[in-house]
Amino acid sequence: MSGPITPGFAFRVDGVDGHARTGLLTTPHGDVPTPTFMPVGTQGSVKGLAPDEVAATGARVVLGNTYHLWLRPGPELIHGQGGLHRFTQARHAMLTDSGGFQAFSLAQQGPRTQRSGATVTAGAKTTEDGVVFRSHLDGSRHAMSPEESMRVQGLIGADIAMQLDECPPLGGEGVRDRVGIERAVARTTRWAKRCLDVWRRDYRPKGQALFGIIQGGTFTDLRISHAEELAALDFDGLALGGFSVGEPMPMMYAALAEVAHRVDPERPRYLMGVGTPLDLLEGIEHGIDMFDCVLPTRNARNGQALTRFGKLNVKHARHKADARPLDAECGCPCCAGGYSRAYLRHLFIAGEMLVLRLLSLHNLHLYGWLMNEARSAIREGRYQSWKRTFVDGYERGEL
Amino acid sequence: MSGPITPGFAFRVDGVDGHARTGLLTTPHGDVPTPTFMPVGTQGSVKGLAPDEVAATGARVVLGNTYHLWLRPGPELIHGQGGLHRFTQARHAMLTDSGGFQAFSLAQQGPRTQRSGATVTAGAKTTEDGVVFRSHLDGSRHAMSPEESMRVQGLIGADIAMQLDECPPLGGEGVRDRVGIERAVARTTRWAKRCLDVWRRDYRPKGQALFGIIQGGTFTDLRISHAEELAALDFDGLALGGFSVGEPMPMMYAALAEVAHRVDPERPRYLMGVGTPLDLLEGIEHGIDMFDCVLPTRNARNGQALTRFGKLNVKHARHKADARPLDAECGCPCCAGGYSRAYLRHLFIAGEMLVLRLLSLHNLHLYGWLMNEARSAIREGRYQSWKRTFVDGYERGEL
Repeated sequence: MSGPITPGFAFRVDGVDGHARTGLLTTPHGDVPTPTFMPVGTQGSVKGLAPDEVAATGARVVLGNTYHLWLRPGPELIHGQGGLHRFTQARHAMLTDSGGFQAFSLAQQGPRTQRSGATVTAGAKTTEDGVVFRSHLDGSRHAMSPEESMRVQGLIGADIAMQLDECPPLGGEGVRDRVGIERAVARTTRWAKRCLDVWRRDYRPKGQALFGIIQGGTFTDLRISHAEELAALDFDGLALGGFSVGEPMPMMYAALAEVAHRVDPERPRYLMGVGTPLDLLEGIEHGIDMFDCVLPTRNARNGQALTRFGKLNVKHARHKADARPLDAECGCPCCAGGYSRAYLRHLFIAGEMLVLRLLSLHNLHLYGWLMNEARSAIREGRYQSWKRTFVDGYERGEL
Repeated sequence: MSGPITPGFAFRVDGVDGHARTGLLTTPHGDVPTPTFMPVGTQGSVKGLAPDEVAATGARVVLGNTYHLWLRPGPELIHGQGGLHRFTQARHAMLTDSGGFQAFSLAQQGPRTQRSGATVTAGAKTTEDGVVFRSHLDGSRHAMSPEESMRVQGLIGADIAMQLDECPPLGGEGVRDRVGIERAVARTTRWAKRCLDVWRRDYRPKGQALFGIIQGGTFTDLRISHAEELAALDFDGLALGGFSVGEPMPMMYAALAEVAHRVDPERPRYLMGVGTPLDLLEGIEHGIDMFDCVLPTRNARNGQALTRFGKLNVKHARHKADARPLDAECGCPCCAGGYSRAYLRHLFIAGEMLVLRLLSLHNLHLYGWLMNEARSAIREGRYQSWKRTFVDGYERGEL
């Protein structure tokens, strides 16, 4: 790497199989074997779960959303309470995103609540200085610049912060908007440097790592050149942002295959906001080390269990009298706890919140198990065949 | 007692202090030191909590509502899944109410959902044969007779079943309606005998206990004579029903003082649907052994913590930056887990379900702790002074 390493951090790769690799990320809050999946605790809680339960799924890093924590309860309050770990009683490592992505995407949805009946206009605008937006909570106006993102993340105090980036949507015609994407890449680089300036002075000395974010949409040449630009800077890790934002999955897979293994191999590579079990295995194949996604917990809250044999919706009438657990070989508190599909279905239909927790634990356990199996397969040089076996079972779906 | 004891059950009193008493109720699913508080798991789940977490609060019996389980998922389904313990993975003892109280009170509220846009009329009607009502879920028509209640409870398979009783409301003028209450007492006795006939033949041999229910409103002479009538029958325990149904609390306390200690001392005495921590201590003082109430868990879901020093609403702005736990001396997963009032408030305001679980655990732990302290105080002959100290602290409220 160029420049000194953040105190308390280290990364080493200790096994390679094709482009897939396994390694160890050291943080001030514990070692993280990679590849790793990071559950999302948007507002300072992985919905319904205590931190130790999350850690028991195999997760070693949990992601918090800077946008949400900034608006509520506020970074000053979290800082005053001793930082995010102490506030949430998490013993594992934490990562915060920059807040930019949510500022843009959530603010556009408009406020969900309106105070005193006033009409509140919503929306977000990105300029060279950052993102100006109105809160989705109360319509209040906020401005997120690279400097402000660093300040807010510094106060929140996760182990790993992310630079502010510009993430253009790739849905519809966006995927072909090369000019727009080039502009976002250039701005992301300028913002990277502004973030680094603040961070080097104020937060790296305190042991908070910073990751840069590679943009470029599905244009692999833009991705590769941006990866090289950012690798020249002293980030602790490099993320691929702006994927899974509306583009067709085959385009993301194709871009990943070209780009991921070309990102500086000395640093952890993080694919942001991705994805399904199959997406993760695809990312690992091309050299990704870290993932985060709301999918396993959000889908759980919609009644969807993810298993070695595909998706299972507990609401379905065919589970009504099924005494089997979701997966008899799964060691999660839901399956090993003996809860039957019939009981889970009853709880879901009856609106009992216990089922949201049991399914969330199950899905996160699947992800934790998947990462553990992937690490073993890579170490033993059989990643391709292991992946094929898992994908076959997942797509056959005969549970 | 008159008649044989249900297999697997026993009850002995092994300490008395005034009318207060401590003892041991033996059930097929474990011993229950009394006095005991039974959390409510209406639909086969104490909302948000796993059975082992409930047991860790000190609870040894959990109550399920026959009305709810009858309508959804249905007693045949529960029976087919091996009964309520196996269906819900509970290792502790379970008790079901008769279903009559909810059939009357909930059905009157009308259906919460309406199928295919049809207008559904709701309401319930009690005749000598039982309660005819329309489901609050879908408006479908159901009839609950003493025989049907026994059949449904037998299929659900809790350790303890309750007879079907008629429970007249005591709100408004009801508290002075002696004729209406006399009628309900007489009918409850006739229903008791019909329940016993079915139970002796079909369910006692299988190890399900049956408790009778004493009615009589706040007329102590009716209560006492009804208690004697029911004590002549071979119930395993005797409950005081029809309290905390709208009457002023001083009237309930006065009736308890006259009635509770006169209920057959050889059998467990159960005060149904009561109550606050102070109500429980009042009941214990007069010789009650068992309680159930939704209060600790329902109030938790509204943000109210119950502590040794009174009630605390976590929503309140004064907790915003309060790093203290709810009660530094409490051993529950919320307090001992280090969660601060500031964090609990944040979670509640942000709509995070983790807080509902943490507050439910805290409140149930307080109830479990309270019962444990009461048992010690009775054994050591200091119940009155211990109660006075607790009540003083609870009413002072200086947490």
